Amino acid sequence: MSERDSYEAALRRLRERLAGGKMLQIKRALHALNPAEIANLLVSLPPRERMLVWEMVSPEDDGEVLLHVPESVRTGLIRQMDTAELVKAAEELEIDDLADFLEHLPETVTQQVLKALDADDRARLERVLAYEPDTAGGLMNTDTVTVRPDVSLDVVQRYLRLRGELPPHTDALFVVDRYGAYLGALPLDKILTRAPEELVANVMERETPAIPAGESAHDVARRFESADLISAPVVDAKGVLIGRITIDDVVDVIRSEAEHNMMSMAGLTEDEDLFAPVRSAMSRRAIWLGINLLTAFAAASVVGRFESTIAQVTALAVFMPIIASMGGIGGSQTLTLMIRGLALGQVGRGNFRFLIGKEIALAAFNGLLWGLVVGGVALYFFDNGLLALVACLAMLVNQLMGACSGVLVPLLLKRIGVDPALAGSVVLTTVTDVVGFFALLGLGTLILL
Amino acid sequence: MSERDSYEAALRRLRERLAGGKMLQIKRALHALNPAEIANLLVSLPPRERMLVWEMVSPEDDGEVLLHVPESVRTGLIRQMDTAELVKAAEELEIDDLADFLEHLPETVTQQVLKALDADDRARLERVLAYEPDTAGGLMNTDTVTVRPDVSLDVVQRYLRLRGELPPHTDALFVVDRYGAYLGALPLDKILTRAPEELVANVMERETPAIPAGESAHDVARRFESADLISAPVVDAKGVLIGRITIDDVVDVIRSEAEHNMMSMAGLTEDEDLFAPVRSAMSRRAIWLGINLLTAFAAASVVGRFESTIAQVTALAVFMPIIASMGGIGGSQTLTLMIRGLALGQVGRGNFRFLIGKEIALAAFNGLLWGLVVGGVALYFFDNGLLALVACLAMLVNQLMGACSGVLVPLLLKRIGVDPALAGSVVLTTVTDVVGFFALLGLGTLILL
Repeated sequence: MSERDSYEAALRRLRERLAGGKMLQIKRALHALNPAEIANLLVSLPPRERMLVWEMVSPEDDGEVLLHVPESVRTGLIRQMDTAELVKAAEELEIDDLADFLEHLPETVTQQVLKALDADDRARLERVLAYEPDTAGGLMNTDTVTVRPDVSLDVVQRYLRLRGELPPHTDALFVVDRYGAYLGALPLDKILTRAPEELVANVMERETPAIPAGESAHDVARRFESADLISAPVVDAKGVLIGRITIDDVVDVIRSEAEHNMMSMAGLTEDEDLFAPVRSAMSRRAIWLGINLLTAFAAASVVGRFESTIAQVTALAVFMPIIASMGGIGGSQTLTLMIRGLALGQVGRGNFRFLIGKEIALAAFNGLLWGLVVGGVALYFFDNGLLALVACLAMLVNQLMGACSGVLVPLLLKRIGVDPALAGSVVLTTVTDVVGFFALLGLGTLILL
Repeated sequence: MSERDSYEAALRRLRERLAGGKMLQIKRALHALNPAEIANLLVSLPPRERMLVWEMVSPEDDGEVLLHVPESVRTGLIRQMDTAELVKAAEELEIDDLADFLEHLPETVTQQVLKALDADDRARLERVLAYEPDTAGGLMNTDTVTVRPDVSLDVVQRYLRLRGELPPHTDALFVVDRYGAYLGALPLDKILTRAPEELVANVMERETPAIPAGESAHDVARRFESADLISAPVVDAKGVLIGRITIDDVVDVIRSEAEHNMMSMAGLTEDEDLFAPVRSAMSRRAIWLGINLLTAFAAASVVGRFESTIAQVTALAVFMPIIASMGGIGGSQTLTLMIRGLALGQVGRGNFRFLIGKEIALAAFNGLLWGLVVGGVALYFFDNGLLALVACLAMLVNQLMGACSGVLVPLLLKRIGVDPALAGSVVLTTVTDVVGFFALLGLGTLILL
């Protein structure tokens, strides 16, 4: 506990020292951190301090640090580096990381990095770059260690001794035939625990499936999670082994997918920079508020239609925020469940009817319960039974509407190819605001006037 | 692509077959799935179908499947099993998983499971059970393979051949002294690539840090992420090796932490069951709506104070939802960023001033921009310059308020020990509703009457 605590405390101390301008101490402290930790520190710094610290990071860590910060932060850091520094940083990286990295560099720098690589590495890099970054091919590294099925474990081991160090996160070698086609995996522990004279073909695991290079990163992540994989082979359309994916890259996919939903629901991206300079955050935030303003106008126009009702029964205005917000809250619960369910592939035609039935039942219960409470409050403060009836009914209607929208809106958005996490809550609250006001003021006009 | 697609498609087909009652086909299909995939299927089924499929799962998979479903689903499945089945399921599990599992069993079953274990396993289990589930000790497994520093790699390898299979996810053996104190890690690839006559002491990695058993699961996850670990040793307060944590357990922690924030913001828990029976979801949902109703009353009471203003200028009622919702939307963006920043340890005293300054600047810009738009709309539809001024000012005030609350509310909640993800949005929207209505109607009273 204390050790980790002291790491988070160290970050805090570092930030305080920065505020105090104690540069020498910071430089020393930076040396004790690994690239991921330095990245963490940079992400938690305002722009000016971030740049100060970034200049103090030793050049051989630059590449790794850049890979550990979110894209929005990376752009700013890269902008501060000259070409020579960028080429140097790139050279320190593994091929899969380098492929990631190159995407974010200006064309001129990319060319120079490619020139600096030897022919072998360039060929490997091009193989990775041929795939979209969010596919298995884009995630993979090409540093596989392969063996042939017809040799003995003893031979494998002699080969490994000759070869020296294995690539990081190597838990298995891959077995290929003479054409490079993937046959199976040979876990390191099998080499160590089985008799040396056994043939690879008899020891290898044929059931370890190869991942097609075109498979989406999302599916790769689910595959790793469900089979508890550390690394997995990637093959091209002909079944030829072209690389491997390791768990550390998959963990990034899992975290960013899980964060994607939360950030999208607030109109943010998952790599939003908390300490972005005001100017760079401005346009995205303004657009999000602009979209929401349009939907607010829709709700307001409903209120506008009933101005004369409100003029006669101003008490209705008091209940407007209650009915609308309760509908939004109830609907958001359903929506949030649906968004996660859709992301995890849990919702489909087979269970849709149960879902909507359940959510409607919950909404009916809650609508009645809290409708009666609101009605009671109306009766107490305004001494008006009909007003109480209107408030209660409006609550019930809007809870039901929230539940239905919570289920249907994300399904419809998905069908038309819009991300439910991004657009879901905007659409949902528009529906619950419009319906809420319409129910309250419409019923008010019918019953109270 | 196709292979994974076909897995999600298979789940869909299974659900459809269930709806059609084709039991034999389902039984056959279940055999092709691994426990995690079966768990996925169960999670995406309504209660009745879930129980049907659960009964078809072969008993030796029961334990693993139970571990892969969220707690809310697990409880329901366990309720359907008799003691003999539960004991059998428990026996199939590894010690760390068994410790997890026992937490969810009735006391009588736990006793029987403990009796069924041999003395050795019981001792190991008790070591894990001694720690809270959300600590390193609770996450760890006791299946470490240890070696002494003064033997050669050759000896290690002969020992491994004698021992046979290694525990899953073993990427390193651990080196301990004669008292069991942790000295370092011996990665499998080192055993394979270094000369057989080298001593363990010269090859082992001393820099692989041991995790104190009391460290929180959150900190363990960050440690794995930042150092890209596959497994890590766990030690007690005296530095004695007591177990190891593997990446598959950590991935669960990472996913559930990331989901926690999103689910909490809608008043849900991260293991909320999408297909929970209505009755079990009822009370939690009702309580959440009840809390929100209280805050809605606060907003409504502000409106109540200005009833006479509304009666005279009903147009103000039209702008109420606009001002309030825009404040909530703007504040929620800030709040969401803060909640993630706090969870990742990025926000503290050293950067707080920059943050609030940045968010206020953004809010001022957006408040003015959209305030002018709303003012323009007011001018166009109501032909009233003063009303336009009121709407514009109220927008500006509420945007600023949203930004300040977005930064301050989560910090204050954290200080008083309340989860910002859970309570943040309730408090924030209360503030923006109350302040929004107060600004609009208050300014309206001052300027328009």
